[in-house]
This record gives sequence, structure tokens and C-alpha cells, in this order.
Amino acid sequence: MAVCTLGHVELLVPNLAETYDYYHDVLGLEEECREGDSVYLRGWGDFNKFSLTLTEDEEAGVGHIAFRVEEPADLERYAERVEDSGYDVDWQDAGVEPGQGESIRFTGPADQTFELFYDIEEPDVPKEQRSRLKNQPQKLVDRGVGARRIDHVNCYVPNVAECSEWFQDVLDFELREELLIEGDDVGKWLSVSPLVHEIAFVEAEEPSLNHVAYYLKSRGDLFRAADVLKEHDVEIKGGPGHHGISQANYIYQDDPAGHEVEIFAGGYLIFEPDWEPVTWTEEDMPEALYWWGKGRKFSDSHEHSDEFE
Amino acid sequence: MAVCTLGHVELLVPNLAETYDYYHDVLGLEEECREGDSVYLRGWGDFNKFSLTLTEDEEAGVGHIAFRVEEPADLERYAERVEDSGYDVDWQDAGVEPGQGESIRFTGPADQTFELFYDIEEPDVPKEQRSRLKNQPQKLVDRGVGARRIDHVNCYVPNVAECSEWFQDVLDFELREELLIEGDDVGKWLSVSPLVHEIAFVEAEEPSLNHVAYYLKSRGDLFRAADVLKEHDVEIKGGPGHHGISQANYIYQDDPAGHEVEIFAGGYLIFEPDWEPVTWTEEDMPEALYWWGKGRKFSDSHEHSDEFE
Amino acid sequence: MAVCTLGHVELLVPNLAETYDYYHDVLGLEEECREGDSVYLRGWGDFNKFSLTLTEDEEAGVGHIAFRVEEPADLERYAERVEDSGYDVDWQDAGVEPGQGESIRFTGPADQTFELFYDIEEPDVPKEQRSRLKNQPQKLVDRGVGARRIDHVNCYVPNVAECSEWFQDVLDFELREELLIEGDDVGKWLSVSPLVHEIAFVEAEEPSLNHVAYYLKSRGDLFRAADVLKEHDVEIKGGPGHHGISQANYIYQDDPAGHEVEIFAGGYLIFEPDWEPVTWTEEDMPEALYWWGKGRKFSDSHEHSDEFE
Amino acid sequence: MAVCTLGHVELLVPNLAETYDYYHDVLGLEEECREGDSVYLRGWGDFNKFSLTLTEDEEAGVGHIAFRVEEPADLERYAERVEDSGYDVDWQDAGVEPGQGESIRFTGPADQTFELFYDIEEPDVPKEQRSRLKNQPQKLVDRGVGARRIDHVNCYVPNVAECSEWFQDVLDFELREELLIEGDDVGKWLSVSPLVHEIAFVEAEEPSLNHVAYYLKSRGDLFRAADVLKEHDVEIKGGPGHHGISQANYIYQDDPAGHEVEIFAGGYLIFEPDWEPVTWTEEDMPEALYWWGKGRKFSDSHEHSDEFE
Repeated sequence: MAVCTLGHVELLVPNLAETYDYYHDVLGLEEECREGDSVYLRGWGDFNKFSLTLTEDEEAGVGHIAFRVEEPADLERYAERVEDSGYDVDWQDAGVEPGQGESIRFTGPADQTFELFYDIEEPDVPKEQRSRLKNQPQKLVDRGVGARRIDHVNCYVPNVAECSEWFQDVLDFELREELLIEGDDVGKWLSVSPLVHEIAFVEAEEPSLNHVAYYLKSRGDLFRAADVLKEHDVEIKGGPGHHGISQANYIYQDDPAGHEVEIFAGGYLIFEPDWEPVTWTEEDMPEALYWWGKGRKFSDSHEHSDEFE
Repeated sequence: MAVCTLGHVELLVPNLAETYDYYHDVLGLEEECREGDSVYLRGWGDFNKFSLTLTEDEEAGVGHIAFRVEEPADLERYAERVEDSGYDVDWQDAGVEPGQGESIRFTGPADQTFELFYDIEEPDVPKEQRSRLKNQPQKLVDRGVGARRIDHVNCYVPNVAECSEWFQDVLDFELREELLIEGDDVGKWLSVSPLVHEIAFVEAEEPSLNHVAYYLKSRGDLFRAADVLKEHDVEIKGGPGHHGISQANYIYQDDPAGHEVEIFAGGYLIFEPDWEPVTWTEEDMPEALYWWGKGRKFSDSHEHSDEFE
Repeated sequence: MAVCTLGHVELLVPNLAETYDYYHDVLGLEEECREGDSVYLRGWGDFNKFSLTLTEDEEAGVGHIAFRVEEPADLERYAERVEDSGYDVDWQDAGVEPGQGESIRFTGPADQTFELFYDIEEPDVPKEQRSRLKNQPQKLVDRGVGARRIDHVNCYVPNVAECSEWFQDVLDFELREELLIEGDDVGKWLSVSPLVHEIAFVEAEEPSLNHVAYYLKSRGDLFRAADVLKEHDVEIKGGPGHHGISQANYIYQDDPAGHEVEIFAGGYLIFEPDWEPVTWTEEDMPEALYWWGKGRKFSDSHEHSDEFE
Repeated sequence: MAVCTLGHVELLVPNLAETYDYYHDVLGLEEECREGDSVYLRGWGDFNKFSLTLTEDEEAGVGHIAFRVEEPADLERYAERVEDSGYDVDWQDAGVEPGQGESIRFTGPADQTFELFYDIEEPDVPKEQRSRLKNQPQKLVDRGVGARRIDHVNCYVPNVAECSEWFQDVLDFELREELLIEGDDVGKWLSVSPLVHEIAFVEAEEPSLNHVAYYLKSRGDLFRAADVLKEHDVEIKGGPGHHGISQANYIYQDDPAGHEVEIFAGGYLIFEPDWEPVTWTEEDMPEALYWWGKGRKFSDSHEHSDEFE
């Protein structure tokens, strides 16, 4: 029984055509299919049928954030745990999302809609897009930034500690790193794999998406990515740089609907079974956030937010 | 109950001083300590006290290959499984290796000495070598190639299928990729984590070490690594290149005792719980082994080995 | 009075559509214009209107290789020198090539058609393709390999020494590096700028084009280039690697008409006024050609050619 | 008659030992020799005996900035031109600087001491430091950042236009790019080669050194350089980033004496004989200075300097 990986994120966008062009042309994602008001996209290295859903809506927002579980029966088990923790569970039928089996949805204390699923089809790759690399879902994309696969989400929440504990207790995430400013829980990075995080919680007054992150093939590709973004008139909000926390190399930008997107590479992997969460404090700033490179505003709400740029 | 990660490899070397210089000056490993006839080394990103042991001996060879388990009681459990499978288990006291708790040793069908341990100290890093990156064991090393951490071993064996099955059945490894030439099992890549392999078995007449691999920080560093190796008069046997299997970027070379060492970067991660092993056959050659770049001889013994260069 | 830079190369191709697709889609060149049986292309960083002409013809071959001179009157001066050296000069009217002024053509001892011109228009870049980088002819191209600008040509000739001396005496090139095998002149690298070469001559039985080379933005882009070439089913004949001579990082491949193309980066620059040509001999092989990485056959005709792979 | 290249820069430092350690250990320069109060250093790719002189003095400052001329007689010719322009010329005997012939020194309107020389010895490389690459002065250095060769200097002056014109008229530099803010000449980039600049002048109230720049082997090495600088506790003032002007990728830092040092890579080359200076204005800011990446303060004195960060 386990959550295994981040599966996909659904973003609500009021300007679907424009936002699609950004993800397809600039980020280099592939279109998998369209259903109703939604377009389903993925990176060339994503093994699931889709990793990003763009759904036309009146206002920008997050539809849901979905994780994949280890086996089908985990849905029932986690549903019970979520309900025991005091939150409602909403079962979705197979096919509500293309190629996906039944799933459960719930909010938890982060006040976002999360989803767990097990069954998911592989990408439906046209013959001419299949790579001779049999361990790669399709050919590498040389369009735009050429983003490889989804990596993690970062959520703004006013209750960082509560969200972190709930994800550990109910969904079996492990706390990998944390940021405490004068004793306040300002950020928590959690994972279900050797990655440092599939999800992070950062303090803000209102719950919202901080960013969704796509991985490149190599950190050297970040220089090219910066060149490509600039030529596409995309504003670079932060980066290229190197986080202290997570050791990731990054570039931040907004999609045309206003969602922040991180493209990144680098980082480190945690294989040790007795990993102790790494605690960063005000004494470690600003390097905890920005080891080197151009930073960007970290949090709107915290009284110490000025230190975080 | 699980094996978590590759811990360290002990190499027997007849020329300790010269071999040490290669690992320290050229590969950029750090010396952790010396005990008896052994020197204990690690990469700047290794979280365990050591990842490579060089032990002076009359002939070059492999002392043992050690994996870390998830919890202390796993040693007893795996010892039972190993014995049930027909192989003897040799218990080692705590302290036989520096900073390490008790361990078990056994051969299994691969006819190498393998070790499982749980307790291991962290690197003993002098204050001036500590990084302000609190999630990094010590400062990044700018000497030589600057190898980051141990990644995997590849063993030559005459009984590839048997070894692969035994590691799956007894030690809970998962088969990730395999190479079949005209129906013969020629190579198997197995892992206990999202890495494609912590161990691989490749067909040869006699059991021996194929290579031990260290990870760099980025695949872009492979160009610099090739420059550095050449200036140190180290022969580059293969690479820079890109494997099909595992998608790793690599450079191969020999240490002064004759052990093959791979420095690599890149690759891909497997997070899917229903991963089906990827099977490559003669029709996929030579790209299965060498997607691009300079190859090196893959196997001495197989009748089709010419295809593998 | 000087030759300043390589301007363009005209390739004759029997399969224009297919060859165009390679240069446009895979190499990432931009189409500038079409006239008669020719398509005019350039890299995103080429300052001249075109750097590659593809002309439909019955057989593959080289139309001509064109260098730009320092001032208009240089055409008359070099025409006189060429004629004095015993070769005919053919004057071309302005407009024979699009956007180009009058030019002179001649063969010299290399038995290829060379051209000198002064007047050349800038690229005609549509508004949406203009970069906010005012020192860059147009936006960086993120399609295919994204080749930046033409760099050099390498010609096979049976009379290496004679060609080298003629280019030095008549056209004011400087000899930068040379390869002597057992006293035979096997290769000469010559330039009119701090580049090591705009032209090289390598021994072969018959005069022909060895290769034309395009520069990338960075040597790190060679990794991505290798990935892209493979996914486009282009065979990589050599590389990624690092030449000894010229210190260039390279990948070699053939266009669909059979012309060899090098994409490269790296190298070094010569600013010293008293540069002595660097002489490499059989004792420096194979590193003179291939410092590291995958080599490719260097010369068909030389009796020692086996050493050159 | 020509100036060919930047030869070396002499920095006055009150803390020679500490400053030496920075250049040797962190920047990776090699010590060539010591004479009197001076240490002579160079990058592994510098073809001259030294490219940086550190001279112990009471206060930090610039001793002189030296360019190499095309032939010995150029010294007499440029001396005459300098005197005709109204500035005194000071002849230095051969041997005043190690391995260097006679030279002339003068200030010109930039109020710095400039030097022209022709004769200069090659680096005196111990046998074990010689590379098998015969076109490389010595082995590539894998210590610290591994800076390759000196590239350019940037001088603060209150009279940008006057300095630029004087270097064009008297020393035959060519203006390559310029920055005008509301009609004021704020920056000029000039060169004697296809490089965009060997010297730049940027507006400030008092003449002083803005920075001296060393080139790396590849722009990908800037990521590693940032890592290395941080681990050596060197503050990164700007970068990694990409200038608009000159297209260079850069990192800025201070040496322990307070001199600003740029390590960079990338850029572009100008081979066209009819190059028109590229003029950037306030409308092109901030991208003229910082196309992407972390900027640093550009000029202290200009009223619009806030725009330059």
C-alpha cells in the first residue's frame, strides 16, 4: 500500500487556445487527446497517458492534483483513511478522465482537490513518433524547451504544518526537508520516492497553486531553455539558478493563464531508509532557497517574505 | 523488508598507492579513513561513511559488494531466505568495516561475495569541508572528475538468468530491462528503487566484475570528465556516449588495478508500480547498448559479442 | 586587402525536397529564399543572407565555396593574383546569387570552384522572427539541432601541400595546423581569422568535399544534438568527440544527398601574430584526430588511413 | 600595424597571499613565476607567459593593462600616434616584466596606464604539465573554476565617448556595440579581433577598473563554476546569466582585494568587414544588459543606473 508518483495536474484556464500554445510550442508538451472542455498533454518522457489537463473555465485555478497508487485495492484503503481523518471522499468512475480507471477525490486540509488512481493507459503514440529507444514512451521532442516529464507540485497553504502532517499520516508521504523561520513552519517538502518531493507546502494566506514543475533531460538544457523562453517572449521570473532546498536547478515562469511553471533539472535522490528531515532556518537564508542564481518571490504572505527573494 | 540501495564495493588491488591516486586525484573521491590494508573512500554526495574500499591484495579482484537494507531486522530475514535458497550465510560483527554494524555475507549463484548491512555511520567530514548546503554530505569536490556518488555495479556471470531470478526471488530486486540475443539471456538490469539498476548481470564465461559506476552531478560534466581523464593519461575505453538500455550517458575506463569504472549521468527513473521489463533483442542492436557515442566491448564470451561493440 | 570569412557553400543535390527537409527540420536552418533550381538557407546566427545553397542537379557535388573579402576593390586584386598564379577567373554579375554583388570564381589547384564576393545583403527576417537581441540576425531556432552559423569547409584533394601553399600565397590564408604522416602532407588547416580554419585540405585520391561544418551555440548542445539526430533516424558517423587538431567538439553525419556535415562547437582562437603552425605526426596519432570520442574514417586514400579511424 | 589581443592586466593588491589563493585555488590560474613584489599568473589556455600580474601594494588598484601588437615596429608607430594625440609615452626596457621585450606605456583619456608590447615568451611549462594536445599551452586545469584564458577588461570612465574615440583613432580599435541612455554615451564595447570586445568603457564618476574577464572552455561550465564558487564561499554578485550586449554568459564576483572578476563563456564572433556598431538604448533595457539571469549593478554614477540592475 503506497502512493507511488505524481500522475497529473488539472489546470483551469480561461484562455485555452493561448495557454495550449504555451504548453505545446514553448514547453514542448505533446497533445494526447481532447475531451469536452479539456486538452490532455504530456512530456515526451511521461509514461502515463497524460500529465497535464487544461480545462477551459471562467477563472484560472487548479482542478485537481492526482497521484498514482501501488495497487488497485489501495484506493479503498486510502479512501478509508481519508474519511477517518475527517474529509469526504468522492469516487469517480473509470473513464471520467481518458484512459483512467476509477479514482477517489478529496481535499484534506490543503483545500485543494487531490485524486488517487491506479489504472492508467500508456500514451497512444503514433507510429512515426515512436522511438527506437524501447524504454522511452516516444521520441524526444526538439520543439521549445522539450520538457521531459512532470515532477512535482508546490502548493500555497496557510496551514503548512497541518498539511504536511496529514500527507504523512494519511497518504504515507515522508518529510524530506523543511524551512522554519523563527520557529514558524514556512515550507515542507515531502515525497513517496527517492525524489525530494512530489509535493511541497509553502505558507501563504490563501490556498492556491504555487507551481507545477516539469523535468528536463539535463541541467545543461536550462541554458538553452532560458534562450528559448526569451525568444518566445516569456518572462523569466526566476532562474536559471540552484535551490539549496532540494538542490534543484530551476527556471520559473507563468503560463498565459497565470499559473507558475517551473522547469528544472538536477536535484538529488534519497535512498537512505533512516533519512532525517533537513531543517533550514532563518540563519540559512537566502541560500536555503537560492544557493545561486536569480531568485523570485517565495511567498506573499509571510512577514519575513522579503528575505526570500 | 527491503533492500534499499547499493552501499559500497570492496576492490582488491595489488598496487594500492597507485590505485588510490587514480580514485582520489582523477575520479575525485574523498578519503574517509584507513584501517589495516584498506582505504575507505566516498564521493562528495555519498551519504554513507564510505562507498569504495580499496584493499591491498596479491591479485586484483572483488572483495564484496554491499547493499543497505531498510531496517535492522531485515538482516535476519534475508539471511533465512538466502539459506533457504541453498547458500551459506556468514555473519560479520559490527566494526569489521569502519562505522558499520553487523552484516551478512553470501555468494548466491553469481559467485561474488555480497553483503547486506543496515547500520552505517555518516561521513566524518572535517569542519572546513562541510557545505552550507545542509542536504549535502560535504562540499562538492572540484578535483579531477568530481564523482558524486556510487550508483551501480555490473557483474559478469555465466548464468545470467539464474542470477537475475535469484536476486528477484531472494533479495526482492525487480527486473527493469533485459537483453536477449537469439533467445539467450545475455543481460539483465535489476533495481530496488526508481533507478534502472543497482546491479546488472552480463554473460561471460567466468564470474567477475564488469564495472562499478559513479554518478556525476550532470551529464554536461561528461565532456569535462573526458578532458580531465585524457590530461591524466587515462585511456577512455568507451564514451562519451548514451546507452539505449538504461538511457545512461557514460564514459568507461580502467583503474590502475584493471577494474573497469564507469562514470555516468543521465538515465531515467521508474516510478510506475506495474513496470513491465523492457526486452531488447538482436534486432535492437547495436542501439540497445550504444544509442550514440563510442562503444566498448560488451562481453568477452558470447558468440555474438562482435555485435556489441 | 583580405579574405575575411567563409560566406557560403553551394551543394548540388539530386533529391532537393528530401535534402531540404534534413537541413531545415533536422539541422534547423532557415529558408531565406528560392530562385530557379536553388534554395538558399542560413543558420539563425549567420549575418549574411545565406550560407548554404541547395541546387537541384543530376548528381551530388559541390557547386562552389564562397569567401567574403574585406572591401569591394579586393575582387580586382585577387582576380589578378589568381590569374598570375595560372588559373582563369570567371566574373559573375551582381544578382547571380540573391542579394549578392559581383563576384569572381576560379578553381586553383584544389579543383573545386571557389568564389570571392564583397557585397551581400543581410537576411530578410520577417518581423515575428526578429529577436530583441539586436546583435543577433534573428531569433534562435529551437527546431532540430538549431545550428547557429556556417564555420568551415574541409576539402579532399590529392595535392594537399600545393593547395595549402596556393591558399597562403594567393588568398592570404595562414597555415594554423598540419598533419604529416611519415613526412607526407596529409592535412592542412588554414584560416584568415582567429578561427583555426575556414578551410582544410585532407589527402584523398580525387578532389571532393570532405565536409561542411555548422557551429552550435555551445558544446553542451552536442549531447542534445546527438539525441535529436538519432530520433530523426540520422546515422551518426562520428562523435560526439573532441578533435586534437583544432580542439573542436564534433558530430559527423551525411545529408540525404551524401554530403558529410559536421556540427560542432568548442575549438580555440588564435590571436597571436607570430603563431607557428602546429605540426602533428604519426607519433601523435590517433589523438591528433580524435582526442576523445567516437572517430570516423578520416581519409580513403592514404596508405596509413587505417590509423585515422 | 595593429593591436592584436589583450595581453595581461596588472592588479595592485594589499593582501597578496589571500588574493593569490583566490586566483590560484578558486579561479584555477597557474603560477608562472615571481619577481620582486609580483606574482605572474595565467590560464591553462593562455599562450603568453602571463596574463595576470598581482603586485603587492598599499591599496588595491590597477597597475597597467597591456595589449600585444602585430610586429615589433608597431611600438614606435603607436608611440608616435599617442604623443601626437597629446599624451606622454613611457618606454620600458625589455625584462621589466618577465619574458617580455621593450614596451610603451601611456594613459590616454581613460586615465589608466595602458601598455603595448610585442615580444613575449611562451609559458614555461614543466614537463609533467605539458598536454599531448600540441595546440594547447599546457594541460587543462581541473582545480577550481579552471579558467582558460584572459578575454577582456571593462573600465569605468567619466568620459566614455572620448575614450572610445581615442581607442578607435589612436589604437585602431573598432566600435562593436554601444549603449545610449537618453542620448548619453553610457557604454562602448571595442575590439581589434572578431571578439566583441577586448576593452569596454562604462560611465562612472571616477576612472577605475570595472572588471577583468576570464574565459571558460564552455558555457556549460558556468553551472559547475557557480557550484565551485559557492563552496569556496565566494559571493556571486551577478549570474549565471546572459548579456544582451556581447551575448556573453557570465558570472561576476570580487577577488579578495575588491577587484571585480567576470568568468564567462559564449558570446558571438564578428567576421563581417562592414560591421555597423549595434546601438542599444533605454528602450532596450534591461535586456541589453541582462537578457536573462541574475544581473548586478552596472554603474554607480549614472542617473539612470537603477535601470541597469
